[in-house]
Amino acid sequence: MESYKHFLAVLSAAAAFGIVSIIFVLRWVLHYREGLAWDGGLGEFNWHPVLQISGFIFLNGAAIIVFRLPWTWRCSKLIMKFIHAGLNLAAFICATISFVAVFDFHNAAQIPNMYSLHSWLGLAALVLFCLQIVLSVIIYLMPFSPASWRAAFMPLHVFFGRSLFGSVIAVALMGITEKLIFGLSNPKYKDSPPEAVFVNVMGVLLVAYGVAILWISTRTSWKRPNDLALHTQHTSGGGEDNIKVGSSLSQLSDEAEAEGHVDVRRRGHKLDDQAD
Amino acid sequence: MESYKHFLAVLSAAAAFGIVSIIFVLRWVLHYREGLAWDGGLGEFNWHPVLQISGFIFLNGAAIIVFRLPWTWRCSKLIMKFIHAGLNLAAFICATISFVAVFDFHNAAQIPNMYSLHSWLGLAALVLFCLQIVLSVIIYLMPFSPASWRAAFMPLHVFFGRSLFGSVIAVALMGITEKLIFGLSNPKYKDSPPEAVFVNVMGVLLVAYGVAILWISTRTSWKRPNDLALHTQHTSGGGEDNIKVGSSLSQLSDEAEAEGHVDVRRRGHKLDDQAD
Repeated sequence: MESYKHFLAVLSAAAAFGIVSIIFVLRWVLHYREGLAWDGGLGEFNWHPVLQISGFIFLNGAAIIVFRLPWTWRCSKLIMKFIHAGLNLAAFICATISFVAVFDFHNAAQIPNMYSLHSWLGLAALVLFCLQIVLSVIIYLMPFSPASWRAAFMPLHVFFGRSLFGSVIAVALMGITEKLIFGLSNPKYKDSPPEAVFVNVMGVLLVAYGVAILWISTRTSWKRPNDLALHTQHTSGGGEDNIKVGSSLSQLSDEAEAEGHVDVRRRGHKLDDQAD
Repeated sequence: MESYKHFLAVLSAAAAFGIVSIIFVLRWVLHYREGLAWDGGLGEFNWHPVLQISGFIFLNGAAIIVFRLPWTWRCSKLIMKFIHAGLNLAAFICATISFVAVFDFHNAAQIPNMYSLHSWLGLAALVLFCLQIVLSVIIYLMPFSPASWRAAFMPLHVFFGRSLFGSVIAVALMGITEKLIFGLSNPKYKDSPPEAVFVNVMGVLLVAYGVAILWISTRTSWKRPNDLALHTQHTSGGGEDNIKVGSSLSQLSDEAEAEGHVDVRRRGHKLDDQAD
C-alpha cells in the first residue's frame, strides 16, 4: 500500500513534468517565437522542438513505464506489448517529422545540415531507435521468434531503451542551447531575457521528467506482478535447470523469461532492490 | 569464463573511450585553442573542459565500476569503499576547480555567470554530487550509521549516482555545443572546420564512455561475488524474516543488505538480468 502511494506520487510527478514541458514548448513557439507553419520558414522549424518534446520524449517515456501501471495488469501482456510498441512507433513518427521540419528549414535558409554535435547525436538516436523498434517487433511480436532469442535480447532491449530515452533528452538540451544562442539577438541569451529563463526552466522540467521515468522503470517491486507470479511458479519447484528457457516456459512473458536466467525474486517486500 | 571475456571487452572499450576523450580534450585546448593558464583569460577557461572530462566524467565513471573489477574482489569491502569515495572526491575537486576557472574567466571578461541552461544544470549536478558524497560518507563510512539506513539509502545512492553520471555527460555535451558556437567565428561552427569535427567526435566518445560504464554497472552477474555469497548464506536458511536487516547481518556489505529486502539471487547463470 505504501509502495503503491509512492508509485502514484512518482507517476503523478512524471506526468506533471512531462505535460508541463509540452505546455512550455507550445508557449515557447507560439508566444515567444514565430508560431507553427509548414512553409520552410521558422514556423516549420518550430515543429522540431514541439514534436521532439511531445513525441520523441514524452511518448517514449510513457511507453517505457506502461507495463508498470497497476490498472493495466488485468490486460493481457500481448495487448500491453502492442500499446508499448504503438507509443514507441508514434514517438518515432513524431521524431521523423520533426527531422523533416528542420531539414526543410535548413535547406530553405541555406544553413548546412548535420554539422553540429546535436545533429550527429540526434540522427544517431533516431536510427538506433528505429533499429530498436524493428528488432523488438521481430523478436517480441512475431510468433516464430524462439523464446531463447526473446530472453537473450531482453537485457539489451531494456538497457538500450532506457539509454536512448536519456540520450534523446540530452540531445534536446543541446538543441535548446543552440536555439537560444542563435535565436536571441537583442537581448542576447547571456542577458537572460524572459524567454531565456522560460526555456531554461523547460530544460530543467525535461530532466525531471527523465529522472522520474527512469526511477519508475528501474524499481523491481513495481513490475507487473503476474509475470513474476508465473515466474515464481515455474522456478520454485526445482534447481537451476528448471529456470532455463524452454518450450514449457514459452507462455511466460518475455520479461519474466529474461529474469529466469538470473534470479528468483520474492514478492511482498517493502523496499525496492538497489537497481532493478 | 565467457562472461569474464565479455566484461573485459566492455571494460577495455570503456577505458579506451574515456582515455581517448581525455587525449581529445587536451589536444583541443592545446592545439586548437589557447592552451592552459591561470590568468583569467581563455587559457584559464580551458581548464573547464579538461577538468570536467578527465575529472568529473572519467573519474566518476571509474568510481562507479570499481567494485566490479574482479582483481579487486580479494580486497576488503571497506578498502574498496574508500577507493570508490576517493575517486568520487577527486572528481568533485576537479569539478569545483573547473567551476572556479569558468567563473574567473567570465568575471574577467565581464560575461554574466549562470545565465545558460548548461550552467543551471551543471551547478545543480555539482551541488547534488556534493550532497551524494556527504550523505554517502555519513551513511556508509561512519560506524554509527544503522544498517537499516544503509539498506534504505542504497537504491537512492545507486540510482542517483548513475543519473548524475549521465547528467554530467549531458551537461558536457551542452557545454561543447556552446563553446563551438561561441569559439568558432571564421570559419563558423556551421562550416564544419576541422576543430568542429574533432570536438564533435569527442562528444560521441563521451557518450560511448557513458554507455559502456552504465552497461558494466547494471549487469548483476558482474557484481562482487563475495557480497552475494554472504548474502545467499544468510538468506537460504529461512523465510523472509531472516532476510530483514538486523544486527546479525551487520557484517554484510551494504549492497547485499539492500538486496536482502528484495530477492534471492543465484550465481553462475550465463545471462545477466534484464536491468540489474
